[in-house]
Amino acid sequence: MTARIADLGEGITLDELRLATRNHGMPLEALRYDVTPAGLHYLLTHYDIPFAEPETWRLELPDQIISLAQLRELPQVSHTVTLECAGNGRARLAPRPISQPWLDEAVGCATWTGTPLAPLLGDVPGDAVDVVFTGADHGLDRGVEQDYQRALSVAEASRRDVLLAYEMNGQPLLPQHGAPVRLIVPGWYGMTHVKWLRRVEFSTELFRGFQQAVAYRINGEPVTRIQPRALMIPPGFPDFMTRHRTVEAGHTTLSGRTWSGLAPIIRVEVSTDDGLSWHDAKVGPPPERYAWQHWEYEWVAKPGDYVLSVRATDADGHQQPVDQPWNSQGMANNTAQRVPVTVRS
Amino acid sequence: MTARIADLGEGITLDELRLATRNHGMPLEALRYDVTPAGLHYLLTHYDIPFAEPETWRLELPDQIISLAQLRELPQVSHTVTLECAGNGRARLAPRPISQPWLDEAVGCATWTGTPLAPLLGDVPGDAVDVVFTGADHGLDRGVEQDYQRALSVAEASRRDVLLAYEMNGQPLLPQHGAPVRLIVPGWYGMTHVKWLRRVEFSTELFRGFQQAVAYRINGEPVTRIQPRALMIPPGFPDFMTRHRTVEAGHTTLSGRTWSGLAPIIRVEVSTDDGLSWHDAKVGPPPERYAWQHWEYEWVAKPGDYVLSVRATDADGHQQPVDQPWNSQGMANNTAQRVPVTVRS
Repeated sequence: MTARIADLGEGITLDELRLATRNHGMPLEALRYDVTPAGLHYLLTHYDIPFAEPETWRLELPDQIISLAQLRELPQVSHTVTLECAGNGRARLAPRPISQPWLDEAVGCATWTGTPLAPLLGDVPGDAVDVVFTGADHGLDRGVEQDYQRALSVAEASRRDVLLAYEMNGQPLLPQHGAPVRLIVPGWYGMTHVKWLRRVEFSTELFRGFQQAVAYRINGEPVTRIQPRALMIPPGFPDFMTRHRTVEAGHTTLSGRTWSGLAPIIRVEVSTDDGLSWHDAKVGPPPERYAWQHWEYEWVAKPGDYVLSVRATDADGHQQPVDQPWNSQGMANNTAQRVPVTVRS
Repeated sequence: MTARIADLGEGITLDELRLATRNHGMPLEALRYDVTPAGLHYLLTHYDIPFAEPETWRLELPDQIISLAQLRELPQVSHTVTLECAGNGRARLAPRPISQPWLDEAVGCATWTGTPLAPLLGDVPGDAVDVVFTGADHGLDRGVEQDYQRALSVAEASRRDVLLAYEMNGQPLLPQHGAPVRLIVPGWYGMTHVKWLRRVEFSTELFRGFQQAVAYRINGEPVTRIQPRALMIPPGFPDFMTRHRTVEAGHTTLSGRTWSGLAPIIRVEVSTDDGLSWHDAKVGPPPERYAWQHWEYEWVAKPGDYVLSVRATDADGHQQPVDQPWNSQGMANNTAQRVPVTVRS
């Protein structure tokens, strides 16, 4: 997923629209769920969804070829993990990088069940640098024909919580989420969680495939872990076309979720004056290290027009920016959400 | 869902993008399925998804208030039904009506299970004209605050195949598909299948609610039944950004689905020269009256650039247009699909 740059103010292009009608975000009212139901979780498919029969599917591992039935006989582990597209928020940048035009909604939190990858890597060759993951989805990007591929360092791939997942929320993976088996790398942006997995292999050199060396890069480096973010459930009710919100005056609980792939979130702040002043919200603990955390804030809403905003800070001191540094592919940007509302009496 | 008009060539607006990142179409490779899996079926939510507890949900009927448990004790029926948004194809019109900017993909075919509505209507008052259906989703459209409402004539609402549905593909309705209960009116565009149903009542006058008298209209009349359409699975593989297809030379089976809410499809034609000449495809029978029908066509692809197209004709003689008559809301338009491909040797 690479990007070209649109002039400031240029309308959304037909190329972007084609992607936006296929792929979809999570409607933000679904932030109410600890675990995102099927069909509400965000979804980005690079090429076409490939369809594999679970009975005939095989995974090539460094030392063996394994079937789904064999994979299911191995020790089973579940992790609840927030996944976010590395391009989330891209369409708000100016000038706008042209690719999948996400606003705020390319996120979801699901429970993934599978078996740890590490034991299946076998004896790691002494000269191995990267572990390369190949999916079944096939297409062209910037003239390069490819099966979708990403790599992890041997150390990262050997983490105990990296899974070969075959279930999402207790059900076999849906076709669009990578059936029958996908990679789950808790804490990393979505491009690393390779769907429709077919092959896992060692590389004795730093992997230079398209999705690592050309796409999914920021400031000359491959995109890795998820930057901190908090999102709120837009309060009140929307206008169909503009999505502008109307809120009843009085006590209103603002709430939502927050997450970071870098460290747990320790602070969420809410602004009701478009970032002039910030107030601490209550933040719940992570139910699991990479599951999103609940936050809430009591607002006494008086009639008028407001821009609500929320920002998160993690335990390592990373805080969401209010003014986003720009990058050419629109990757890993995490500007604080802004929700314009009108409060009526 | 009303629409304003964009100048020819105007870029897609932020309002349209906001809708496109929330709502989503069916990736066309999912035309391979007789029944569309959860999360791949198209989805349009007018306001926010409302969340109801199945235990406390109640439906107001003309003569009684009923719980989900009581509804589930009534005779159970399943119908496999093609649903399509009345605005499908809107974004291809010029000038472009500004609303949810669908291209070709606002469709799906699911098996809906519930109980017939007709016996629950009770004794129809002699002066009843319409049956009005009210959902729980609440918002503004063109300044009109409303719960989502649509009506059917008493005759149409009394059809034996009109259902109060509580399951989709054998599972309880997902939140975004109308949980716990929605209306299913086989043959009609999606706006009639009221989701998150709360009330069913008789009206002694023609219903004049917003979604009937202002939105969802074509040429001065409310939109009703689905016009004929055929869609193909785009062959070969795509480019990420443009979705332009590459196909290998040789024998290629083009296939897809076709449907009409007016009469069964009796003819599907394929063009490989952008509509200059048309060739009959094989069309399967409808598995059920309003389920989509399979079609296929054998193409011997030679290297070069092509625009593939497909059009359907139903038993009442309605044929998809190649040049679409324009209407101000972009409703019920069913221009033949065009798929540009490059065949390589």
